[in-house]
Amino acid sequence: MFNVLIGQSGGPTCAINASLAGVLEVCLNSKKVDNVYGAVNGIEGVLKENFLNLTDIFKDDTSKKLSELSVTPSSALGSCRIKMPPIDSIDSMGFYNNLFSIFEKLSIKAFFYIGGNDSMDTVMKLSEISNRFPYKIQFIGVPKTIDNDLVLTDHTPGYGCASKYIASTVQDIVMDCSVYTVKSVTLVEIMGRDSGWLTAAAAIPSIEGNGPDYVYLPEVPFDVEDFLNDVNKAHEKHPNVVICLSEGIRDKEGRYVGESSMSGSVDVFGHKYLSGSARYLEHVIKKRIGCKVRAFDLNLPQRCASYLLSETDISESFKSGKFAAESMLKGKSGFMVSVARNTNPYSVDFSTVDVKNVANKVKTVPLNYINEKGNYVTNECIDYILPLIKGEVKLNYVNGIPHHLKLK
Amino acid sequence: MFNVLIGQSGGPTCAINASLAGVLEVCLNSKKVDNVYGAVNGIEGVLKENFLNLTDIFKDDTSKKLSELSVTPSSALGSCRIKMPPIDSIDSMGFYNNLFSIFEKLSIKAFFYIGGNDSMDTVMKLSEISNRFPYKIQFIGVPKTIDNDLVLTDHTPGYGCASKYIASTVQDIVMDCSVYTVKSVTLVEIMGRDSGWLTAAAAIPSIEGNGPDYVYLPEVPFDVEDFLNDVNKAHEKHPNVVICLSEGIRDKEGRYVGESSMSGSVDVFGHKYLSGSARYLEHVIKKRIGCKVRAFDLNLPQRCASYLLSETDISESFKSGKFAAESMLKGKSGFMVSVARNTNPYSVDFSTVDVKNVANKVKTVPLNYINEKGNYVTNECIDYILPLIKGEVKLNYVNGIPHHLKLK
Repeated sequence: MFNVLIGQSGGPTCAINASLAGVLEVCLNSKKVDNVYGAVNGIEGVLKENFLNLTDIFKDDTSKKLSELSVTPSSALGSCRIKMPPIDSIDSMGFYNNLFSIFEKLSIKAFFYIGGNDSMDTVMKLSEISNRFPYKIQFIGVPKTIDNDLVLTDHTPGYGCASKYIASTVQDIVMDCSVYTVKSVTLVEIMGRDSGWLTAAAAIPSIEGNGPDYVYLPEVPFDVEDFLNDVNKAHEKHPNVVICLSEGIRDKEGRYVGESSMSGSVDVFGHKYLSGSARYLEHVIKKRIGCKVRAFDLNLPQRCASYLLSETDISESFKSGKFAAESMLKGKSGFMVSVARNTNPYSVDFSTVDVKNVANKVKTVPLNYINEKGNYVTNECIDYILPLIKGEVKLNYVNGIPHHLKLK
Repeated sequence: MFNVLIGQSGGPTCAINASLAGVLEVCLNSKKVDNVYGAVNGIEGVLKENFLNLTDIFKDDTSKKLSELSVTPSSALGSCRIKMPPIDSIDSMGFYNNLFSIFEKLSIKAFFYIGGNDSMDTVMKLSEISNRFPYKIQFIGVPKTIDNDLVLTDHTPGYGCASKYIASTVQDIVMDCSVYTVKSVTLVEIMGRDSGWLTAAAAIPSIEGNGPDYVYLPEVPFDVEDFLNDVNKAHEKHPNVVICLSEGIRDKEGRYVGESSMSGSVDVFGHKYLSGSARYLEHVIKKRIGCKVRAFDLNLPQRCASYLLSETDISESFKSGKFAAESMLKGKSGFMVSVARNTNPYSVDFSTVDVKNVANKVKTVPLNYINEKGNYVTNECIDYILPLIKGEVKLNYVNGIPHHLKLK
């Protein structure tokens, strides 16, 4: 018998709790596992020894609570954005000694970390440094990111829900904008610092003729003059032009569009803080074309809108958590769960990949998914996204709004 | 036998097509009505003689199409924002002569206009000036506005859907923001130029403990120093403060918050163009409190998100359209449909009110719906909103996104 610890890290998604529920289902039912603990706010909670006893919390009504948890947005255990110190520096040893003494004190034999690129960096470092400690623990990475930018996996849990939200919302925006005859441009900025996967989802409603006029991803250089030409061409066809663009679009020198107007500050991981590719282009259009322009970004609802979940994504996220826990019970460590796709009909298989080969890498949208002009995605891209957004999830509504499970 | 014309005007809502479907159901089934025409882009379409023959379009699969239309967002007939010229000016007579000759040419005996305050101004003017023309037409106003700011009606069709979206989205945002331990403020700006009805809906998730920290409506003067005190007080309780505020909040001199940074331009109805009460306060908080701040507005999805409809609102919108058409068949003219509420259990009755008493008036949130400090709504307000957002609508999904009916 041993104890298990689970943490969540990075930005929340609508599917991150489904992965947690999957890990829990296996661990709570395993005779090998004594107590399952949750680290409140990821590594930050481990350091503060701020834990929830999930075995206690899920003792009664287990399956009902796991179902509710699976469709609860946000990170039920809380999150953090802590960059782990380098494992090869003598200055870091105090940090890791402290961490492993806490693991040992709590008899933790397996630590699951549910997160994206930066969380896989944490799993990799913990896994590598653990060889230097006598107390043995398994470290397991469970993928989640709306950005879909993890390598060595067909797609990431969380991407399907965010894409379904973006595709449906952009369809509604296109329909809303079509009602007037006055010439206008609506610029919709979509999350995705380094990859255009989320912005690509905006093209889905084009299947039914309700797509935006253009979709610009960060994978190809953005040229303002080409962009203005595109807008003028679209205006020849209809008065209301809708354009979706990634927050991360860059010019051919690699500078973010509108970068000059930004502070240049970076977050703890060294990522440039971005705001406003749409807002910058709003000013350009006002000046150069002179028509009515509206610019806005889809912001937090992209990652937290609980009322439009992809059944495929929630189900796969749950299963990836289960697979992570089953692999742990088989003694595996230092891995991330990977998803492989079968087509016709669509299905997935899970496997493990060495977390070293995933951490700190970014999977961008392949160039054959983007058209030659760099202003739309191709049918291959749409075919890739479609199965991930299929299926709807029935939610429990109380007082007219979705009812969610809270752990803390 | 006579013909009927229907137009939609002003900003689209998720329920405006349900009202259209209600008018259609009665008119298409009436033996008194020959053809039902739709004016494409409201009055603009009438002037251009741009009409759809809705009798033809709905000839086959009528009830299926009406059901689909009822849950289609945006204005299916298109919209416009034309201010009708004054009826007492000699300069306007050419305009009205032209309009009435078009009505006569098409044998229109009843004109339905589905819209908000400005559309009721159109109905009023047409109704008043029609006395001077020999050709007789009935003019009927069907209310729709997410703003809920029409007088002489308990609430307006469209408000329930928008409120359900806002309440659910704010709950998700509050849960999303709660995951980190770093001190932050999230400012969510909500539509509503002159009334706080939509912003009030953001308080609904407080019933389950998932509400924002504060809700500021335009009905009470906004004081920046009081606001900063509120933020500091909330930070004593938890690190992640979420605040919802109306785009229309004003200081005690009546100036819009952040007005000085705006262009002062007005739209065709003389409404001041607003942008960014949240963005202005973002800068104030950065400077005065110095913590992490995020400001954004819910923008178009507030009025067009088709995937989160209030069953109550859609059903009432449909019935208000039906009631409008039934009243027309009884010979009534110059009216707007009004909704009266019965409580315990909630139900509604429809009646007609003179459109003269509705046009160009604004119903604001009563002061007993706002707390003494002016930073939240009261339970009376929540009790008022709750029944309007209840019930969910099952949609037809194709390719993972809602399928909508298009008329043009």
